[in-house]
Amino acid sequence: MMSTLITNIGELTTNAGSPDDRLGTLHDAAVLIEDGRIAWVGASGDAPAHADEFVDAGGRAVIPGFVDSHSHLVFGGDRAAEFEARMAGQKYAAGGIRSTVAATRGATDDELRARLRGFIAELLAQGTTTVEIKSGYGLDVATEERLVRLASEVTEEVTYLGAHVVPAEYADRGDEYVDLVVGEMLDACAPHSRWIDVFCETGAFTVPQSRRVLEAGIARGLKPRVHASQLGPGDGVRLAVELGAASVDHGTYLTDDDIAALAASDTVLTLLPGVEFSTRQPYPDARRLIDAGVTVAIACDTNPGSSFTSSMPFCIAVAVRDMRMTVAEAVWAATAGGAAALQREDVGVIAPGKRADVVLLDAPTRVHLAYRPGVPLVKQVWKDGVAAL
Amino acid sequence: MMSTLITNIGELTTNAGSPDDRLGTLHDAAVLIEDGRIAWVGASGDAPAHADEFVDAGGRAVIPGFVDSHSHLVFGGDRAAEFEARMAGQKYAAGGIRSTVAATRGATDDELRARLRGFIAELLAQGTTTVEIKSGYGLDVATEERLVRLASEVTEEVTYLGAHVVPAEYADRGDEYVDLVVGEMLDACAPHSRWIDVFCETGAFTVPQSRRVLEAGIARGLKPRVHASQLGPGDGVRLAVELGAASVDHGTYLTDDDIAALAASDTVLTLLPGVEFSTRQPYPDARRLIDAGVTVAIACDTNPGSSFTSSMPFCIAVAVRDMRMTVAEAVWAATAGGAAALQREDVGVIAPGKRADVVLLDAPTRVHLAYRPGVPLVKQVWKDGVAAL
Ligand SMILES: [Zn+2]
Ligand SMILES: [Zn+2]
Repeated sequence: MMSTLITNIGELTTNAGSPDDRLGTLHDAAVLIEDGRIAWVGASGDAPAHADEFVDAGGRAVIPGFVDSHSHLVFGGDRAAEFEARMAGQKYAAGGIRSTVAATRGATDDELRARLRGFIAELLAQGTTTVEIKSGYGLDVATEERLVRLASEVTEEVTYLGAHVVPAEYADRGDEYVDLVVGEMLDACAPHSRWIDVFCETGAFTVPQSRRVLEAGIARGLKPRVHASQLGPGDGVRLAVELGAASVDHGTYLTDDDIAALAASDTVLTLLPGVEFSTRQPYPDARRLIDAGVTVAIACDTNPGSSFTSSMPFCIAVAVRDMRMTVAEAVWAATAGGAAALQREDVGVIAPGKRADVVLLDAPTRVHLAYRPGVPLVKQVWKDGVAAL
Repeated sequence: MMSTLITNIGELTTNAGSPDDRLGTLHDAAVLIEDGRIAWVGASGDAPAHADEFVDAGGRAVIPGFVDSHSHLVFGGDRAAEFEARMAGQKYAAGGIRSTVAATRGATDDELRARLRGFIAELLAQGTTTVEIKSGYGLDVATEERLVRLASEVTEEVTYLGAHVVPAEYADRGDEYVDLVVGEMLDACAPHSRWIDVFCETGAFTVPQSRRVLEAGIARGLKPRVHASQLGPGDGVRLAVELGAASVDHGTYLTDDDIAALAASDTVLTLLPGVEFSTRQPYPDARRLIDAGVTVAIACDTNPGSSFTSSMPFCIAVAVRDMRMTVAEAVWAATAGGAAALQREDVGVIAPGKRADVVLLDAPTRVHLAYRPGVPLVKQVWKDGVAAL
């Protein structure tokens, strides 16, 4: 049994508070980790005297590890030139998502694995201890199977997203591609996956197609989550709510009906500030969502096309500045909110029995995550009780 | 003599190019550092065979160290609670800048020095190798002298900013405070300073007061730079141009006359994206400035009130997203632009004879600085030829 006692925590965000203090903030606190789990939380003065290892937080802030509930981390190549052209207001002729599909299909397992492990290290160094990873750059049976299999090597939260976009070889034959997605491709991918996802949007999959994909996944024991309302309003959010999706993601364009449906449901709305930042889209108004009673999460949506950040602190800062969240709401959304979006009760919270996924900030308060945008503020990370840095 | 050869650089930004390729980009390049200076730049295949140390960049990108030409790094305390309240749309009763002045006056030299050295390490880790530091949180003779003296321990680019704001004890006696700034305080601070600065803005110092401050500094051999047009349009930009300031900083609200005056001058306009980000002000339009022929720099303005970022990559990303700079323009503005704003020819450029201030990015291209916002991308930094990380 290995134990670590972190003492002298100036500000401890537990996310184990009461309804009117959801962050459950403690000052001058201590946390005991034993065998990868939180064993004890309390005042520094009451801390147990014995542990294998002692860490003095020096008055700094501690938060739960970030739970990034939306990423696309298994892919080949990047699209820096496309990004640069878009930001310069230029048209860019090359293939967009199709160029990533080609690079991904052309990469070996080892190449994709090395890249993926690099991203996981990058995330950990930025305080992310749980990450969901989607397929969706294979779009054929063999490659989609590879992507969910590779993702399952590094996370429990694997999402089968064969229905990311209709591949070039199925142009104008979307329904036939959906046949494949809910048939042979699902057979190949379901064993490695926990979630089924679909991009329900004009230009991707219609509401009836999305319903077919999600229901087929549900029938195979996968749980639903949905990409919707990124490029314009649509019926994807209400489909997600109807099917009991854990989360519907993007929500850049939400109608009053969408918000009412979300507020009356258990479906989380996951905001992806990096997407609006990196595509110059308007930001959705998180203030309006939260005030209406919607549960909001924040995730990075790390992908080479629309949001290549992997920084949860960056997304928090943008959510505060441009989506009108308070700092407390944004920190909750990036930790406990992400856990809710993944229907996980063992992460995103610092309380006895939970996983010891803990971040020590080089700052006196979590406020610095938004107050000091872009500055690397993660001093140490414990993932399942093991120091990562 | 100590030498380091960096080979296999996938993309080298030299800033030593021609007028239509200011960034002077080389591919598959190498750089030789000798005794703290750049000794040779060229194709990897032509690199010298001998060096004390070899670094394989592995195809990654190399850029000149960032030149951050505007910071306020010597201060006590922080104002996280004020930031949090502002972002939540709440009034915050506590003292704003005056609380920083009180905390700074109350801090010992050793406390300020330790904090300052921490910031310098933080900047280096983010690729900043030259930083200008202003006084301005003392606002009495003894404390302002301490601030410029402490700043001079860590940088050659020290700015005397006694005229930051009128302190509480001189309320409604601004002209008397200016007497002090241009008299005894200038006597105490000039020996430690290279620059004289003033906050020329409604609520701070009028144009006649600003002129007195700048002219008194110039008479003592200091060079002028000016804070202007942050909170609204005014005559500060044209005063700066008239007095031949190296730079006028902020420029959130510029008139057509301001832009014409800048374009016809050698005065740099230094944009501070962190300020607009952290105060929710509208962003100035860098596109319009650059297209009009203005030389534009980017700096962090690190300070506890309006912009506590110290991340030049973050500022680049915001300048691209929200000020409509191209990535190339923003990278130039954060390196060579900063050097121009400090009238330095030995930094911000990778060419023989220049200081060996060099940043190796963990990315294949400088584009990633904007494409991957918030992600720490600095793999190694050489400052005067010495590896810092
Ligand atoms: Zn996505
Ligand atoms: Zn300033």
